[in-house]
Amino acid sequence: MREDRPDAGWSAPEATVLERAAATLDADRDGVLATVVGVAGSAYRRPGAKLLVEGDGHTGSVTAGCIEGRLRTLAATVLETGTSQVERFDLTGDDEGWGAGLGCNGVVDVLLEPLDERHRPMLDGYLAGNDGLALTVVGGAGDELPVGSRWYATDGDLSTVTGLPTWLRGSVAEAVEAVLAGGTAATVTIPGPDGDVEVFCDPVLAPPALYLFGSGTDVDPVAELASRADFRVTVVSFRGGRADESLFPHADRVRVTNPTRLTEALAFDEDTYAVLMTHNLVDDRLALESLLDTPVPYIGLMGPHERFEDLRAGVGNAELDLTDADRERLYTPIGLDLGGGTPYQVATSIVAELLAVRNGRSADHLRTREASIHDRPDGTGVD
Amino acid sequence: MREDRPDAGWSAPEATVLERAAATLDADRDGVLATVVGVAGSAYRRPGAKLLVEGDGHTGSVTAGCIEGRLRTLAATVLETGTSQVERFDLTGDDEGWGAGLGCNGVVDVLLEPLDERHRPMLDGYLAGNDGLALTVVGGAGDELPVGSRWYATDGDLSTVTGLPTWLRGSVAEAVEAVLAGGTAATVTIPGPDGDVEVFCDPVLAPPALYLFGSGTDVDPVAELASRADFRVTVVSFRGGRADESLFPHADRVRVTNPTRLTEALAFDEDTYAVLMTHNLVDDRLALESLLDTPVPYIGLMGPHERFEDLRAGVGNAELDLTDADRERLYTPIGLDLGGGTPYQVATSIVAELLAVRNGRSADHLRTREASIHDRPDGTGVD
Repeated sequence: MREDRPDAGWSAPEATVLERAAATLDADRDGVLATVVGVAGSAYRRPGAKLLVEGDGHTGSVTAGCIEGRLRTLAATVLETGTSQVERFDLTGDDEGWGAGLGCNGVVDVLLEPLDERHRPMLDGYLAGNDGLALTVVGGAGDELPVGSRWYATDGDLSTVTGLPTWLRGSVAEAVEAVLAGGTAATVTIPGPDGDVEVFCDPVLAPPALYLFGSGTDVDPVAELASRADFRVTVVSFRGGRADESLFPHADRVRVTNPTRLTEALAFDEDTYAVLMTHNLVDDRLALESLLDTPVPYIGLMGPHERFEDLRAGVGNAELDLTDADRERLYTPIGLDLGGGTPYQVATSIVAELLAVRNGRSADHLRTREASIHDRPDGTGVD
Repeated sequence: MREDRPDAGWSAPEATVLERAAATLDADRDGVLATVVGVAGSAYRRPGAKLLVEGDGHTGSVTAGCIEGRLRTLAATVLETGTSQVERFDLTGDDEGWGAGLGCNGVVDVLLEPLDERHRPMLDGYLAGNDGLALTVVGGAGDELPVGSRWYATDGDLSTVTGLPTWLRGSVAEAVEAVLAGGTAATVTIPGPDGDVEVFCDPVLAPPALYLFGSGTDVDPVAELASRADFRVTVVSFRGGRADESLFPHADRVRVTNPTRLTEALAFDEDTYAVLMTHNLVDDRLALESLLDTPVPYIGLMGPHERFEDLRAGVGNAELDLTDADRERLYTPIGLDLGGGTPYQVATSIVAELLAVRNGRSADHLRTREASIHDRPDGTGVD
């Protein structure tokens, strides 16, 4: 991230925010974690968006830049008092000219917390690649459960949580189920012995994994744009000699394996995305066969239609039989139809397609979309 | 560009290749310009794609990385002899495993030339923002017009060319017209007094201009991805205090103006793209009114439908009357429907839409496209 100005980290991918928070905690440096815990009206970021303040800079975004400066100031107080607090920012009548601003036209509640050991289970779980659920008290419970009280459930499974009061455990389970079904973070109200408690339920999900199969110079631009867009990028080479990490500076990691042994060397789940760009018909064919045995929802294959037909017909192999379900997740030629043929134009087309598939979106122009920008096709209202 | 390895410059935007060539020429450093002048079969890059070799590194791409290494070796010979030459690369039967490779499955002819004063008119014209046409002899003429003989026509107007032999001037005009109509570079055969001459006609067009109107932290990620994708990016601020170039490190330039005086301060043509992201309803409205008086084919407006309706209804102004033609080039909410709400995900959605509009493409998944990836909707076969 560029670090030459206080707001330089605003555009940091979400992974960077949490990785940086973990590093700050490990190094015992001061930090304040800010999390959007409520939104009324229109907002640029959704509940769960996170930002880390360190010194006079920050990493991450909670609005389109409207309140990040004020959060840096508030963070100093939070560090001084050691007390977590929720701040409400009403941007509807703001006289700084933002009032009529895009996406910052609503009321945003932000939880500010000094970064400390309470955050470690969430950060450790995230770094280990787990989908988790963070529960945080954001109001109402008084001294027994002050704002900032936190629990972490691995895989959203409440039985993994320690220290959750018994009276809360039962009531929170139902709320958690609803939040997980909706897929978005939300604050829920739980009746307690001394009145209602507000608990922010935050699915802290591992970023989607993207495997780029290939070793050519065309791989790194895709890695660059995909990691900016919050994919965790692994370059997978079938050529040991080209598996030098310095060739792929934008990948999170580089692995070497054999196209017939993909599933031994790499993990695949429903949130794993695969791009075949080996430039070698045999390697692409073998890797494609392996990938079709995994649950990946997206297999992008570089090259024109004709090349795919050659690959399917077989190069010394039997013809590849594809079910409708196979064809559904096979994208070839890869990418959206944007035109343009330079390396970054091609990479833009690929990463745009990856985002659309991951988010279940049409890739149409947004101006033709009936629902709100943030709504899911099922109307549950998330990114 | 990353410069830590010989092929690090492969993904450089086209503008970078020509800017770098101009700098190399100005500094009187050795360089070799490689240009794709012919393609048979499938190819990653189209005729006109350029690459600059300097020392043991290069900037730009002519294939998907298949022959760039060999070009660096050949360039040494070209520098030594001072002689331009056309090399044919037959990648269909290549035994390096590329033969069945994507996009490098054809025959590619590459012109290699020592960078020298013959290139100055083209480079000067490009840097001045002119659309031009470079004519280069690539074969057939013998000693009178050796390979590498060059002329440059500003705005494709042959009357601006000096030094073109009279017998060539007449015959080339018709060929040039056909090339310009097709919009893509091509080699044409011209009958001459001593036999046929092969002339490569290369429209060297100024990159599209992108104006990003705004001063917020959300502007630079759009500038970054757009400049990667070969737009020439100007950030236009209506707030002098936020017009600091260090805030927008990825923009080519930063300008300050007033939303009612856009056309006094900035140039607009049919290849200019505008994005309104000022976060201020009044500024967006005034700038939109100004932009509708220009020939720009794309005006993207950040923010949800409702915000646009507020803007259209007027904030102390009269209601904005929009013709069908106005609505046709107004994109709001801006971007393709990719989902995702982080700064770079939003920027990806915007730049993908810009590319689709500029190239007259559908933004559908390429797998649904009937025509070849490189074909234009009219079938003329260019990027």
